[in-house]
Amino acid sequence: MMPMPPLLSSADAVEDAFYDAMRRGDLTAMMALWADDEEVVCIHPGGPRLVGLDAVRASWESILSGGPVDIQSSEVRAISGAMLCVHSVIETIQVQGRRGSETVRCAATNVYVKGPRGWRLLIHHAAPAGASESPPAAPSGAMLH
Amino acid sequence: MMPMPPLLSSADAVEDAFYDAMRRGDLTAMMALWADDEEVVCIHPGGPRLVGLDAVRASWESILSGGPVDIQSSEVRAISGAMLCVHSVIETIQVQGRRGSETVRCAATNVYVKGPRGWRLLIHHAAPAGASESPPAAPSGAMLH
Repeated sequence: MMPMPPLLSSADAVEDAFYDAMRRGDLTAMMALWADDEEVVCIHPGGPRLVGLDAVRASWESILSGGPVDIQSSEVRAISGAMLCVHSVIETIQVQGRRGSETVRCAATNVYVKGPRGWRLLIHHAAPAGASESPPAAPSGAMLH
Repeated sequence: MMPMPPLLSSADAVEDAFYDAMRRGDLTAMMALWADDEEVVCIHPGGPRLVGLDAVRASWESILSGGPVDIQSSEVRAISGAMLCVHSVIETIQVQGRRGSETVRCAATNVYVKGPRGWRLLIHHAAPAGASESPPAAPSGAMLH
């Protein structure tokens, strides 16, 4: 028997479970958080826009097959509607590279939608976001827009 | 006398005006589209998270002082609530670099909010997003999450 998907009572609860699933490397828990909707969108840092549950699942399968992700979220700015909720968060990720452990700072925009089983993740958009909340120093960033 | 801010009847209208203001390099038109809210968030490609109208205005002033931005938006995926609306779009930007004209593809998540003067932009989050909508090929992207 398939387990019932969890009933998530708020966007905050989904967000906590989302980063927790990454930290535990738990693909099943991760995928239970997404909306049951072919319109889901996931953009990993530096990656293309993935649309639909199949593409989103494949990407997480690939990422989490490498083990847990050492990630913390902070500095949440939330805007809440009746059926839609958006969080802008800062992600701090510890990455093991050739030069040892490195801290990468990303900004993520997470969009949550309310459905029959409570709140679910509809869009996760994460991208490297520089060291601090100051105007961009690099002209290359300013050139794009 | 200060002109009244425009009455924008939909998130679509704000989005059209947003990319149009970039293409025309029009700072006044650009800033008239943002919510009158210290919580506005703008993340330029590769840049840090900017919070508040002062930081957002300064960034656009710097960018548009370089002239118009040759940008097109396409492949819009929208989710609409009563007071909140989110668009995921692909941006195609022509950049003049050392090696001539280059096309950069970004993904943007734009969040709109309904206020007393119609719809306004609350969050613009743009980041380089690879060449196509396929799973990330670079392991560096997969390593972050």
